[in-house]
Amino acid sequence: MRSILARSWIASVTLGLLCALVASVHAQPVPDPLPSWNDGSSKQAIVKFVTATTTTGNPAFVAPGSRFATFDQDGTLWVEQPMYTQLIFALDRVRVLAPEHPAWKTIEPFKSVLAGDRAAMAKFTMKDLKEILLATHTGMTTGQFTAIVKAWLATASNPRWHRPYTDMVYQPMLEVMRYLRANGYRTYIVTGGGQAFVRTYAEQTYGVPPEQVIGSALEAQFTYNEAGEAVMMRPPKLLINNDFSGKAEDIYLFIGGPPQAAFGNAAGDRQMLEYTQSSGNRALMMLVMHDDTAREYAYGPADGLPASKIGTFPQSLYDEAKAKGWNVISMKHDWKRIFSFAQ
Amino acid sequence: MRSILARSWIASVTLGLLCALVASVHAQPVPDPLPSWNDGSSKQAIVKFVTATTTTGNPAFVAPGSRFATFDQDGTLWVEQPMYTQLIFALDRVRVLAPEHPAWKTIEPFKSVLAGDRAAMAKFTMKDLKEILLATHTGMTTGQFTAIVKAWLATASNPRWHRPYTDMVYQPMLEVMRYLRANGYRTYIVTGGGQAFVRTYAEQTYGVPPEQVIGSALEAQFTYNEAGEAVMMRPPKLLINNDFSGKAEDIYLFIGGPPQAAFGNAAGDRQMLEYTQSSGNRALMMLVMHDDTAREYAYGPADGLPASKIGTFPQSLYDEAKAKGWNVISMKHDWKRIFSFAQ
Repeated sequence: MRSILARSWIASVTLGLLCALVASVHAQPVPDPLPSWNDGSSKQAIVKFVTATTTTGNPAFVAPGSRFATFDQDGTLWVEQPMYTQLIFALDRVRVLAPEHPAWKTIEPFKSVLAGDRAAMAKFTMKDLKEILLATHTGMTTGQFTAIVKAWLATASNPRWHRPYTDMVYQPMLEVMRYLRANGYRTYIVTGGGQAFVRTYAEQTYGVPPEQVIGSALEAQFTYNEAGEAVMMRPPKLLINNDFSGKAEDIYLFIGGPPQAAFGNAAGDRQMLEYTQSSGNRALMMLVMHDDTAREYAYGPADGLPASKIGTFPQSLYDEAKAKGWNVISMKHDWKRIFSFAQ
Repeated sequence: MRSILARSWIASVTLGLLCALVASVHAQPVPDPLPSWNDGSSKQAIVKFVTATTTTGNPAFVAPGSRFATFDQDGTLWVEQPMYTQLIFALDRVRVLAPEHPAWKTIEPFKSVLAGDRAAMAKFTMKDLKEILLATHTGMTTGQFTAIVKAWLATASNPRWHRPYTDMVYQPMLEVMRYLRANGYRTYIVTGGGQAFVRTYAEQTYGVPPEQVIGSALEAQFTYNEAGEAVMMRPPKLLINNDFSGKAEDIYLFIGGPPQAAFGNAAGDRQMLEYTQSSGNRALMMLVMHDDTAREYAYGPADGLPASKIGTFPQSLYDEAKAKGWNVISMKHDWKRIFSFAQ
């Protein structure tokens, strides 16, 4: 047995030497993890953050199991103009469900939706939108809702680019997510949108599994079907409104503390970024500014840009970013390409 | 270059042969992953479940990223008699905080706690307990609360075994958690206890990180300290009551669907197990039955055992388990040892 063990030891050493040889022969320059980003302060900030927090001995080092990065979705990971995708889904559902609700033809806000009255729809209040969302998103099992969303996503398309909505994701942000994950970060989506809605496609679209999607959520209701089996229903009752302070509070609820990096683009992301900054000196806070009419849209705090009701980026948020060392990403200047299918 | 590549190819082949040699020399019998379990139907059910759901091609196979197992804590992972650990913490806190609240000496339920009136405390209603929990668990930042819990756990000890409460964990269940994790399962704690309380020690005690602890939770409140920095407060308002149907609903909220395996011990775990069973034919549902007065406690549905107000295991749950193919674990017969420090 001793001689076998000795041979095994020699084999192990030889193994190590050969591994080193093979590695040196195959050595390649490390590919740029962010090829869709132009060189500049935004790209540098991301690389600097990842390097600092993953280098043993660096004061900013974070243990692998504790690495978290959170991403707003609408306007940060995918297009939110001219309207949130989930709202377009809801309006489509009103039309599909209308035959079951004859009264909708005569009562608002459904009447305007069915008439296609854009002027009236543009004036919808939050109460109107909530009514539409509850009418189209509740009263079924969680499994039924998922199937409805998937079927819609498979056929619906964005009116400007004529592509599925899940194609309307920003390639540079996908690269940031992959780069972070390759360095031990878990990437969470923290969206004002519906948690169940986003969970239907987040894994395929962003590589984010369901348990890493935090969003606005109904109070799910456990009950039984006719066969006595457990089912989960979607009653018309909001449990979590995941926006503004809610984003920070729900990150605490789900994760137990602040992430080290956060990405947003609008007023509703302010508290998430402030909470992230409380995690330490080397935290990374970034805001996407939409300033590229030609390749996407322009709306935001930069001079001369029109204000937007959707994805509002107020001047006060811009000022706070500058004062606190947050990084404002210019789509026009920082992004080499915006979508995977176009420059 | 060609000759270097050829050499590299030869090196790779040699590498493969040597790896095979080293592996065969080091081959060992696989150690029993559940050494604290006696052979029997409970142990067999666990091994059979893990084998089936992790074997490619098996109809019960579950993709690694989708493997989830959920565990109740009190009475399933650690001792819950004579009183829930968190309640003992709360009573201790009443005594610590009493000097700041002179009125407590004269008003219930605090008066009985401060007087050490066990008879009166045994009659506390849910309203009394809620009042004590809110008075001792709220009004501070999340960071302050964590520090208070950690300090208490470092000094408090269980009255029967005279050991820290975090030693009062069931060794066989730790083995199940490790065995599941070694097979790609994420192990979640799903407890009626406070999420923030359990998160302070779950990683060290069970290997369960904070984001995998689902528990009853306050509505955290994002605000600012005097320096204008983000802080998270604990106001006296319950957001999630994680018990009974709430356990299933919160699993859906946090994970997005049912787990494949669930472990409980009391009436409050019924819906979690029912929801787990809805995940498929090969799901594993197990209930720990406390039937071992000598080594721990006996309370439950087995003949002649006294009923317990804490951790009630009603006959109806026992009957449901038998009817639905759930596995009832007998501490007395299935567990070779209960604690790591004793047989």
